[in-house]
Amino acid sequence: MENFNFYSPTEFVFGKGRAAETGHFVKKYGGTKVLIHYGGGSAVKSGLIGIVKKSLDEAGIQYCELGGVQPNPRDTLVYKGIDLCRNEGVDFILAVGGGSVIDSAKGIAIGVPYNGDFWDMYCGKAPEKALPVATVLTIAAAGSEGSGDSVITKEDGMLKRAVGSDHLRPKFSVMDPALTQTLPAYQTACGATDIMAHVFERYFTNTKEVEITDRLCEAVLITMVKEAPRVIADPDNYDARANIMWAGMVAHNNIVGVGRQQDWNSHGLEHELSGLYDVAHGAGLAVIMPSWMEYVYKHNVLRFCQMATRVFGCQMNFENPEVTALEGIHRFRSFLHSIGMPINFAELGAKEEDIPVLVEKIGIGDGKFGGFMELDRNDVTEIYRIAAHASL
Amino acid sequence: MENFNFYSPTEFVFGKGRAAETGHFVKKYGGTKVLIHYGGGSAVKSGLIGIVKKSLDEAGIQYCELGGVQPNPRDTLVYKGIDLCRNEGVDFILAVGGGSVIDSAKGIAIGVPYNGDFWDMYCGKAPEKALPVATVLTIAAAGSEGSGDSVITKEDGMLKRAVGSDHLRPKFSVMDPALTQTLPAYQTACGATDIMAHVFERYFTNTKEVEITDRLCEAVLITMVKEAPRVIADPDNYDARANIMWAGMVAHNNIVGVGRQQDWNSHGLEHELSGLYDVAHGAGLAVIMPSWMEYVYKHNVLRFCQMATRVFGCQMNFENPEVTALEGIHRFRSFLHSIGMPINFAELGAKEEDIPVLVEKIGIGDGKFGGFMELDRNDVTEIYRIAAHASL
Repeated sequence: MENFNFYSPTEFVFGKGRAAETGHFVKKYGGTKVLIHYGGGSAVKSGLIGIVKKSLDEAGIQYCELGGVQPNPRDTLVYKGIDLCRNEGVDFILAVGGGSVIDSAKGIAIGVPYNGDFWDMYCGKAPEKALPVATVLTIAAAGSEGSGDSVITKEDGMLKRAVGSDHLRPKFSVMDPALTQTLPAYQTACGATDIMAHVFERYFTNTKEVEITDRLCEAVLITMVKEAPRVIADPDNYDARANIMWAGMVAHNNIVGVGRQQDWNSHGLEHELSGLYDVAHGAGLAVIMPSWMEYVYKHNVLRFCQMATRVFGCQMNFENPEVTALEGIHRFRSFLHSIGMPINFAELGAKEEDIPVLVEKIGIGDGKFGGFMELDRNDVTEIYRIAAHASL
Repeated sequence: MENFNFYSPTEFVFGKGRAAETGHFVKKYGGTKVLIHYGGGSAVKSGLIGIVKKSLDEAGIQYCELGGVQPNPRDTLVYKGIDLCRNEGVDFILAVGGGSVIDSAKGIAIGVPYNGDFWDMYCGKAPEKALPVATVLTIAAAGSEGSGDSVITKEDGMLKRAVGSDHLRPKFSVMDPALTQTLPAYQTACGATDIMAHVFERYFTNTKEVEITDRLCEAVLITMVKEAPRVIADPDNYDARANIMWAGMVAHNNIVGVGRQQDWNSHGLEHELSGLYDVAHGAGLAVIMPSWMEYVYKHNVLRFCQMATRVFGCQMNFENPEVTALEGIHRFRSFLHSIGMPINFAELGAKEEDIPVLVEKIGIGDGKFGGFMELDRNDVTEIYRIAAHASL
């Protein structure tokens, strides 16, 4: 195990009806003037924004609002949010939505006190401070409610870039599984895929002797394999939603990923896909991740056997472990297909002829792209090609 | 799943050589005058206290010190610590040791700003504030490095009582697995037992639909079953120590126990044992917990089968599930015995004739003692009796 620091100070306020306590928690964490940041009209139509506002009113907290966050949230709205917060004297950012809204809120939070272009922080500069952020989560997926991460897309060139900093850890996150019951099945499945991907990016490691985090990773994955099909079959299943929602936080606040080298190459490959085609991140991951696995599994066949047997219930083939490793990858892809996810470029709406563009955008040039297995341009091209043609 | 709040703001500073960063972190969390609190001479002899002092000196932080914490830490030393802190103007408590030292430090931390007897808080009064506490952990066991809990023994009557409050969550905890390499095997095994007990107290629940926390609990348990025998066989195995140390934190900061009714009856039964005989808490748990399991398993046979199959690798007997449940309990007791733990009263140094005294001290009178299965005086007596006579 490697040395590490782990810090996850967010207070999680979990369960039915908890959004009505938002005002209480904003006050507890020192907010006096709040920006309510949200996406499309669904948070308004569902009455959630109304519940949040009533709760802020009751706590005597002022607010302004900015809606319109899109999936793959854009820098343009972040700039607008920064201006609004400065003009209105906002001291607390409240994201009401899923990962896109939360990521956009985090972008605004680092931008307001920064004397320059917030995009600098998405290009490698370390944030020194940020306004406090909190969330009322409506989609179990990104794990942004418990993480210090944010991903924003620069509209000019559809360039997707990330920042990570403890300053961006939410002060509190309201997590009411019932709020996710009205999500379309496709979005629910995209979320489930994202959660599993967050674990796999940590699971595939070259670090030895990480039993506790291996087992914790597998705990989240096994849970998703059980619970995701249940919510697809029965969207109103509160308990299955609740298990997925807590799994989504655990998957990405890094408690299951400490002390080990992590991968994140699938996320890198996917970001270019969803950047170029504006498809859902989870859907892109469903196409990329099993393809990445097929390309890299020989780097450590037994680790893929571990996944296959412990997560997907395969019988170990001791005479020919590769059979087990490939069976595990096949079961993962079949699982994704069974919950309605695309598994190749055509189903995603991507084009094989764009592969050179995708490879170019990753920007590794003649270098390599680190992680579980180092990848150069040829490797990346090959993985996109597998993804283009994948089938069950 | 039930509604819950989860808050674990401690910064964990994990890995080899990290104690040298103590001063940096005290400064980061606002300490200017520190009480260094520790147990016997081993922390001094090993050079650890010296490393901590050097690090505080380098950060320009003043300190005083108070050693002498015993296992099952006493109220008498807490009073002494409170006086010392008030006289010296201490604003930060640093525990260098295991669970006993940390629990004693937490007692001091709530006592200093409280205008009354700190013992009030161990008798049900909610703490309103506390001095900041941090830890340099030397034993993987109690999970006190990440929890808001403290257990203190009142010397007059050897009464063991607990308090839990977010005010007691450490600001930071230095966790260097190498510091545990010099522990005697018996203490290492007591720690491992305590870690498993913290999980089992959460695992045995009547709450339905808790897949994610069930799987996370099992992840910690499976890790302990693998790693504990390795460190008993090879005390210098850093990686096994590291896995156990992180497992110990995860077992008790409650991330694996949220959203469910918990038990804690075994801890209740054990506290009277270690209170009366001053034996190690983990050793007492090794005697009590499998005995409690044997007494209550019929309350939910299939939950015990889940433990037996998933944690201890038993084959499920579908014709007669009780066989599997009992086999799981047997394997747990055998496991504890294999790492050197006592399994009955004689091996622990307890006496069957004291059972009425133990039952009296629990103080349930004619009432019941809640949890997985409600227990009255007769139930408690019977569990102690099973514990008195247990064998493999």
